[in-house]
Parts: sequence; structure tokens; C-alpha cells
Amino acid sequence: MAAPNVAFPGRTTQDGNASKARNWLLKQVFRAIGPAPIRLAIETGGEYALPGSVPVATVRIPNLRTLAQMAVDPEIAFSEAFADGSVRVEGDLVRALEVVYDSLRSRGGYGWYGAWSNALLELFESNSLDGSRENIHRHYDLGNDFYRLWLDPQMVYTCAYFETPDATLEEAQRAKLDYVCRKLQLQPGESVVEAGCGWGAMALHMARHYGVRVQAFNISREQIEFARQRAKQEGLDGRVEYIEDDYRNIRGKHDVFVSIGMLEHVGRSQYARLGETVHRVLGDTGRGLIHSIGRSYRAPVSRWIRKRIFPGAYVPTLGEAMRILEPHGYAVWDVENLRPHYARTIEHWLARFDGARGVVSQMYDEQFERTWRLYLAGSIAGFRTGSLELFQILFAGPGCRHPFRETRASLYAPQAEDASSAGGRA
Amino acid sequence: MAAPNVAFPGRTTQDGNASKARNWLLKQVFRAIGPAPIRLAIETGGEYALPGSVPVATVRIPNLRTLAQMAVDPEIAFSEAFADGSVRVEGDLVRALEVVYDSLRSRGGYGWYGAWSNALLELFESNSLDGSRENIHRHYDLGNDFYRLWLDPQMVYTCAYFETPDATLEEAQRAKLDYVCRKLQLQPGESVVEAGCGWGAMALHMARHYGVRVQAFNISREQIEFARQRAKQEGLDGRVEYIEDDYRNIRGKHDVFVSIGMLEHVGRSQYARLGETVHRVLGDTGRGLIHSIGRSYRAPVSRWIRKRIFPGAYVPTLGEAMRILEPHGYAVWDVENLRPHYARTIEHWLARFDGARGVVSQMYDEQFERTWRLYLAGSIAGFRTGSLELFQILFAGPGCRHPFRETRASLYAPQAEDASSAGGRA
Repeated sequence: MAAPNVAFPGRTTQDGNASKARNWLLKQVFRAIGPAPIRLAIETGGEYALPGSVPVATVRIPNLRTLAQMAVDPEIAFSEAFADGSVRVEGDLVRALEVVYDSLRSRGGYGWYGAWSNALLELFESNSLDGSRENIHRHYDLGNDFYRLWLDPQMVYTCAYFETPDATLEEAQRAKLDYVCRKLQLQPGESVVEAGCGWGAMALHMARHYGVRVQAFNISREQIEFARQRAKQEGLDGRVEYIEDDYRNIRGKHDVFVSIGMLEHVGRSQYARLGETVHRVLGDTGRGLIHSIGRSYRAPVSRWIRKRIFPGAYVPTLGEAMRILEPHGYAVWDVENLRPHYARTIEHWLARFDGARGVVSQMYDEQFERTWRLYLAGSIAGFRTGSLELFQILFAGPGCRHPFRETRASLYAPQAEDASSAGGRA
Repeated sequence: MAAPNVAFPGRTTQDGNASKARNWLLKQVFRAIGPAPIRLAIETGGEYALPGSVPVATVRIPNLRTLAQMAVDPEIAFSEAFADGSVRVEGDLVRALEVVYDSLRSRGGYGWYGAWSNALLELFESNSLDGSRENIHRHYDLGNDFYRLWLDPQMVYTCAYFETPDATLEEAQRAKLDYVCRKLQLQPGESVVEAGCGWGAMALHMARHYGVRVQAFNISREQIEFARQRAKQEGLDGRVEYIEDDYRNIRGKHDVFVSIGMLEHVGRSQYARLGETVHRVLGDTGRGLIHSIGRSYRAPVSRWIRKRIFPGAYVPTLGEAMRILEPHGYAVWDVENLRPHYARTIEHWLARFDGARGVVSQMYDEQFERTWRLYLAGSIAGFRTGSLELFQILFAGPGCRHPFRETRASLYAPQAEDASSAGGRA
């Protein structure tokens, strides 16, 4: 573990009282997170920051015991203590996480303890059929009422597309649904399969505005029930079928495969099986779009996120994602990185979440609420700093000669936008 | 080697004269190329096509000896015999190659002989500093007069960008140069390094229209001399420096890295070194664009192309190309597949080449002319059928927070096109 460029002893307001042990521990914490401009304040006395830095926030640590835990395993210790309320962040939580992520990037991660714990954690994770069902249940079946508090009315829980920075979340989610349809150049009468359909908004948008039939798969019961009800209410249940099953069980032939925000849950070990599913469905002539959080470098998902938020999650590089498509000769036509749009999307979510503060802690408890605030804030920081990316990958089968228009200009033509906001293309 | 779905004995006009040996050989050729709708006609007697197929062209084979060679190694034997004039193709050469490529794709390549010969060929190829210089010399130093016969006046020897299908080659090459600059969002005063600059058109366009300084590297002496002369004539030699050296010797710091049509010559073994070069030049904060022929599946370049046209060439999948960027955490922002544009570009080249038919054979000889016709026709067929792709990969360093605009709309905005055709942005 290389030492970061940190000058020690740190600046202190009570140098006389600072014990050697405390100084040593603070040094270890700064070593672990890198030279980030944050202030560490110990409630029992002592306050430290990097000399010359202007701290963006103050992290209040209750005692030396918590400090010691943070020195050994800063990621888990900080996150758990933040969630139980014993560690507090004064100032902008997102900015604080941003500067730490930037600092970690420049020194290449959390070091040996993180790597070792990651390997250990992977032993207990499973992306088998049963494992995936349990993983998905733990996150997505928390209750539709909870997600309704902070998502848009259509309940789209993936990166939105902001045609202008001041678009509302509702507009941006609708724009995303339509953007995906336009990228895929859906034609009336085509058959689409969706793997991992969330609360069903994409399938409904496709059927309503593009005249396609959709089979949409999901293993979250709460989401499927919501989606079925909505399809019925909107008179689209004849064209959209929601199926409670795993993507690996998708059968039948379709023209188009679409998957928005599912790949993160698939797990690296299953990419070949996902590729087989795509090929079984599309053959050589179909086309598809995979929308997923990604990385610009290979690394596991934060251990704390996998422990508390997304068990079994893995976020691939573009190169790793190619393991799905290349064995079957699918040609990539378009990859777009929408990372700034995901930062903006989650800023909207976090603002709504914070607006519903009392409600969430009444629904669950304060620890749950803090856990979710940290997850949302950390995700914004991740997309802002580039520890996370968001890829939309458009592809077509080797037997699909002219799958898409020769230029992307029509995607951005004013008439396309007009048609979209008028909502009547099909 | 799996047998294709071919019914034998084939249709013949002189069944009575067809010897058993000839039938057996014809069967082997069809096995090797797959069930393609072409007619094989042997000058010494006999004419075969797949039952029920409408042949797109007739391949006239002089004798059983050539037929036997084609049965063993159809790729090399056909190409060499086409080049020496002993095998002729009646009908549309591009279409004939297209149907064979389609057929080969559906049965997965040339079989064991092709794989074995490929492995052997690789032993004799080298992408070392000296090897690359020899490889590049053999192709690009054939004489500027030769390339001037069939390229556009700016001598751009890479995929053009057709904003409309009826754009001229000159317009489409100019549009490509400008499209790359707009993707990179070049700013006046920035410093650009170009790896593999051909005859220098991209560097000149950048300097003239975007006010950047460019250092452009190339190891083809003829190209560098042409480029230097042009820069001087156009008064841009103060802002564009052409350097006769290998990309691995690029030094100094730059804001932008660009490489158009060089990666094909780099060779898989050197991707890590190319990545190191990019990182040495850009650090964590720069951005870049790599434009290269690619594949949707892993496969070596045609052995005949490597033997006669591009020694040392390797065409990567997108996943393989990521080996350049991912070790350094460069984030991919945009990948566009311009395959239909390359098919169209080479259609223009081939039409000009055929228009200069007598001139080329006078410059060299008829074998050279036929070799190049086959290479151009085969390339069109490759891009049409998807045995070749064309990727533009836009990327930015991990320390580059907001490298590009949040949407791609401005790339296609009318004002951008107007400014481009007015030719005065800087």
C-alpha cells in the first residue's frame, strides 16, 4: 500500500491534548482514503485536516474506537457508523464523498484490506436462479410506497436523459424511454422482449407510442404486480405481457431485446448465459440495447453497497460487457456514456428523498433512512467523479444487414422531439 | 469442419463429361466457401452452381489444378489466381464476394486449413519498431501518384462520413474530418497529437478550423513529405508539425490524442504499449478519439490481405480495443459504428480506381492492378456484410470531469453544419 502525499502531523486545534495513538490512527485513516480535503473531528477531543486544504465537510467521529475501525476498513466502518448515526457529516455529504472518491482514484483504491474483503465477500454471493431472486427481493420488494416517495410518477428507477439541464425528472425519464425507442428504431408490429422491466414503464411506452408487442420479465413480485395493474388500467395489457421470471428463462423469438438497468445484477459469472439468452431470442437478425451502470476500470462494487443495498451486484467495464455480445458476433453500433445524466437523476431522487425525511424513518427507521441517504449521495459522487459510468450499448445481429440509419442525426432532429412530446408516434 | 447444407451432385450442363475427380473437387470448394449462390465454370469443361440458387456471378477457373488449389485453400488460391489473371469473375465482383462472405459467416470461417495457416503466418509477422516500418513502407510508400488516382484531393485514406448518401467523396471526407473535431470538442489553443497521420489532412483541418496546434506522427516517408509540403503551401507549418517517427516514440504532453486508421497496423501484441503512449501524452486529464476498422467477433485479418496488402494487420473487436484504454481508466464516452459509411467510401474509391484502369497497370502491371481491385472489392463486401466494422471511440481521462457536452445533439445541429461548410470556426 503506497503512502499518499500527506504531510503529518496534521493541523490540530488542541495539539497539547492529542495522544500519540490518536495521531497515529488519524494518519492511518488519511492513508486509507488518500489526501482528501475533509476535516476529521473526534467528539472526545481533536480535530484534523490536511495542512493547506480547505475542507469541504467535517466528519464527526464519536470516539477512538470508531476511529480505529475506520483506520482498518474505512469504507465499511464509515458507512456503518454513518447509518447508525454515531458518525455525522457536517456540510455537503455529496461533496465530501466526491473528494474522497477523487482521492481514492488517484491512489488506486482502498488497498489490501479492501481487496481481501472483496474476495471473501464474493464467496458468499450468488447469482444463481435462487440467489438472484433473493438478491432482487431484498432491494426491489421494499415496498412500492417507499419508492413512490422519491421516484417520478412512472417509477423509473434508472438513469434519465436530460435533453436540457433544467428538464424536470418526469420529463427526463420520459425522454429516456423515448430515446431508447428511437435508438432501437422500433417499427409497428415488431416484437420486443425486455429483461428486467422494473415497474414496467419502458414496455408501456414502447407499446403505446411505437405499436410494438412486449414481453417483459422481472423477478421482483412487487414490481410485476404494479406493472400489470398499470397495463390493465391503461388498456395496454393486450400488447404488454409482464412475466415473473428470470432472464435466463426467456424463450421464444423476438425482433428486439432491451434491458435497462438489469446487467448490474447479473454478475460477471453469468455474462455468457445472458449472451446465450440474447442469441436464443434474437438469433442472427435481431437487434437490441443494453443500458447499464459501467466502469472505466475493472473493480468490484463497493462492499458496503453489496452488503446493504445491492447484494450480488457487479458493474462491468465496456470490455467486460462485450463478453455478452462478441461470442455471438453481435455488432456494436452505438455506445453512449450518460454518466452526467445519472448524477443529475440521482440529485433529483436525493432531493425528493430528503423532502420525505420523516416519512421514510416512520416507514422503516432512522438507520434505514441514513443508509439510503448515504447510498444515493455516494451514487451521485460516483457518477460525478467517474468511479461509475452509464453505458447504453446498441447492437445488431450479424445477419441484420442495415439495422439502423446511417447517421444518428435523426435522433436529435427537432421533428423527432416534437413527435415525442406530442406522444403520438405509433 | 462441418459440411454446409449443399445438395450434391451439383447442377451441370455437361453431366456426361464431368469426371468424378472434378465433381469431388467442386464439392470441396463449395464446402470450403459454404453454400454461396455463385457459379463455378471450368474452362476445360463443366459448370456448377448450387441447385435452386440464382448465381450472382460466374467464377471462371482455368483448369483442375487451380480448382484443386481452391479446394485446399480457397482464400489464397482464388485471390492469387484472380491477381495473376488465370481466374476471372464474370458479373459483379463485389456481389460475388458478398455472397461468399455471408456464406462463410454462417458456417464460421474457412475451417482448419485457414486456422492453421493463420497461426503459421503470424510467426513471420512483426509489429516491432523495425517490423512496423517495413510493413508501412510496403503499403503507403507505393507512390503518391498512385493514391492520387483514386483518393479525394486531400488524400484521406480512411472511412468518410456521408451526412447524406449522395454526398460526394470530397464532401464526405471533409465532413469526416470536421465530425472528428466536433466529437473531440477542440478548443482554440489546445495541443493535439496525432498518431498515424496519413497524408496529413486531419492535422491541417484541426489547425485551420479549430485553432489548435498539432504534432502528427507517421512512419511513411512519402506521406510525411507530402504532408509537410502541403502545410507549408497553406501557411500552416507554424501550427502543424509532421514528425517521421513511430507512435511508440511520441513524447511530450498534449490535451488531445487522435488516431485515424492506425490501430489496424498496431497489432494486438502492442495494445498495451499504445495505451502507455496515450497515457504518457494525455495523463489523467486529456481526451482522445481512436478511429479504426474493427470486428464484431475475434478473427485474424484475411491471410491474403496480410500477404499482399497489409502485412502485420490486426482488426480488433471493441472488447480487444478496450485493452488500450481500461488499464489507465480512460472512460469511453461515445462509440459509433460507421461501417455503412466505409462501404460507401470504398465504392467511390473502386469506381475511381476502375476509371484509371489503364493508368494503374502502366504504372505497375496488370497483376498489381487486379490485386488492388480485389482488395477494394473485398473491403466493400466486408463492410457490407459485417465481416468488418468501423469504430470511432471517443474517450476521456479519469481526471477529466466534464470532458464533453451532456448530449450529442449539438453534433447534429444545423448551425454546426453551416459553420463547417463555411469553413471558418477558429
